[in-house]
Amino acid sequence: MLLRCNALSCRRARGFAHERDLARKLWARGFAVMRAPASGSKAKRLVCPDVVAIYRGKVLVFEVKTASTPRDIYIPACQVEKLVEFARRAGGEAYIAVKVIGTGEWLFVHVEKLSRTQSGKFKISKSTLGEALTLPTLVSLVKGVRSLLDYAEK
Amino acid sequence: MLLRCNALSCRRARGFAHERDLARKLWARGFAVMRAPASGSKAKRLVCPDVVAIYRGKVLVFEVKTASTPRDIYIPACQVEKLVEFARRAGGEAYIAVKVIGTGEWLFVHVEKLSRTQSGKFKISKSTLGEALTLPTLVSLVKGVRSLLDYAEK
Repeated sequence: MLLRCNALSCRRARGFAHERDLARKLWARGFAVMRAPASGSKAKRLVCPDVVAIYRGKVLVFEVKTASTPRDIYIPACQVEKLVEFARRAGGEAYIAVKVIGTGEWLFVHVEKLSRTQSGKFKISKSTLGEALTLPTLVSLVKGVRSLLDYAEK
Repeated sequence: MLLRCNALSCRRARGFAHERDLARKLWARGFAVMRAPASGSKAKRLVCPDVVAIYRGKVLVFEVKTASTPRDIYIPACQVEKLVEFARRAGGEAYIAVKVIGTGEWLFVHVEKLSRTQSGKFKISKSTLGEALTLPTLVSLVKGVRSLLDYAEK
């Protein structure tokens, strides 16, 4: 059976497991959550985010990434553009959701915080990741428990 | 190959094709649209609707059914309850989306219009289906081009 487990399918299976983990955590905090269709061609998946979470009309859309150590993260331009287009239609906010392998912590970087490389890719620098929102902070922001100003002033 | 095509997988494949059809039509009309994950166990799919469509913070959630002739349609209670719970969290509206096989037309019945059978199932009666919203009407309602009152007065 191991021989049939090629690198691509392994990476995809792990990716889905992380998406499910994020979806479960947001559902447990009261959000309506949907993951992208897992089957079908990659082209079909490109039109939608990995995870969409909605709380009383407030929409969050996520592209899911993982990082085993603090490092710069690069994201293909097409992934960010599709995410932004989905968020624009939905009237929502687009985030890159980064799962830190090891601790299992989730960090959230708004697409407006991304920088651009010379080759046209988008990038989360190590320092931007250091300022990312945690899950409790993101949830508080959406639910209106705390305002963005609380963070801007610090 | 035909021998491997059992009734369940055929029904599921057809179901996904109808969901894709609805998703494409709503995307073409400016909505952000997501279909449910197609793979995995049935239990995983039960927590989310077949299709979710969002337009500037207005959320529609759909359970997809088909009807080849005008007839009463029965829906398991658990499907409606999950749909309503998802819509409650999202602050959205829950509909049964019925594709009329042959014409290809889509009809939309709000969950509040469903009746209940003695066995606990939900039901769309033939007469309720006759009063269902068409796709252009549903889209107009969401986009605010026409108000619900236009229809209530008729």
